[in-house]
Amino acid sequence: MRAQLDFYFDFSSPYGYLASERVEALAQKHDLDLQWHAIALGFIFPLTGQQPVVNVPLMRDYFLHDVQRCARDNALAYHHPDVFPVGTVAACRTFYWLKQHHPALLIPFTHAVYRAYFTQGEPIASADDVASVAVRAGLQPDGLTQASQDPAVKAATKNAIDDAVARGVFGSPYFLIGDEPFWGNDRIEQIDRYLSEPA
Amino acid sequence: MRAQLDFYFDFSSPYGYLASERVEALAQKHDLDLQWHAIALGFIFPLTGQQPVVNVPLMRDYFLHDVQRCARDNALAYHHPDVFPVGTVAACRTFYWLKQHHPALLIPFTHAVYRAYFTQGEPIASADDVASVAVRAGLQPDGLTQASQDPAVKAATKNAIDDAVARGVFGSPYFLIGDEPFWGNDRIEQIDRYLSEPA
Repeated sequence: MRAQLDFYFDFSSPYGYLASERVEALAQKHDLDLQWHAIALGFIFPLTGQQPVVNVPLMRDYFLHDVQRCARDNALAYHHPDVFPVGTVAACRTFYWLKQHHPALLIPFTHAVYRAYFTQGEPIASADDVASVAVRAGLQPDGLTQASQDPAVKAATKNAIDDAVARGVFGSPYFLIGDEPFWGNDRIEQIDRYLSEPA
Repeated sequence: MRAQLDFYFDFSSPYGYLASERVEALAQKHDLDLQWHAIALGFIFPLTGQQPVVNVPLMRDYFLHDVQRCARDNALAYHHPDVFPVGTVAACRTFYWLKQHHPALLIPFTHAVYRAYFTQGEPIASADDVASVAVRAGLQPDGLTQASQDPAVKAATKNAIDDAVARGVFGSPYFLIGDEPFWGNDRIEQIDRYLSEPA
């Protein structure tokens, strides 16, 4: 049986965006069953007392520099959005609506939202923003604009985030291979080494 | 002129310990002028609102697992101390006293304190603890036990930490090459790549 790689990310997380562009190659290299899990850190940070790093003195400047440096290191486009961070509940709910109703669109949708926000600075905070991004990317299933108002989707989103927390997820990107956790885009090389070791 | 690598570390920082065992090879490889700077995060965390990660729900378990995993990855001995974290003001002051009076002992002292704490679980919080560790490591210059009470040393320590903060240092380990900052033991490979690039 193929091992599973669980990839947790927040749509407003720059390092999550970078990882989203790299995780498929990692999974392919090691023949892993890659599972994508959107989370909303707005629900998780209160549990840990964390706050967005741009609100933290001293760390803010480092972070803004480091994200762009890491994007260059990873040979990925990056433009820091003027409005940052943003709420990601609507994007998260749309993600879980797609997962249920149009699973084939899940990964294209994820890339579309991340790229719209982190390379074009397009808004992604509201349900309308998210639907617009999806439509411009050629993804327009019936019902998309109402997705985030669906009570079943709201419940599915909450359950997904609760499950993530129950597995110890506290940041983005976060990876689990079984019980082995890895936090951060800068750990992808470590995951690669971990998977390359004899079991 | 050789470029300078400024290495900032807190004696109670596990990742600082791991980096302390790797930074000399990095400096040697790239012919850098390595400068060691002890800091006391107890003075810096209040500026950023951070707290020791072992006090943070969810992050605690990840951290305890990750430190040991990174030590294995780096092929370094590690035993998580029973008493953790500890105050590092006394160790810091002794460091700056040595820097002024016995600079040749500075790096042996740093290794001795880190290894005593992170491989043997020996106490390093008080001035007496620090002096004992130094003596057991064969470092016993006259005046060592009184070092941390010297008003000039207290002032030098405070100045060193203020200087670190003024340069943006907020964690341990933290590296600066000119104005280029790197935070974390897991960034040593990135520093290596950065130094390997054509200028």
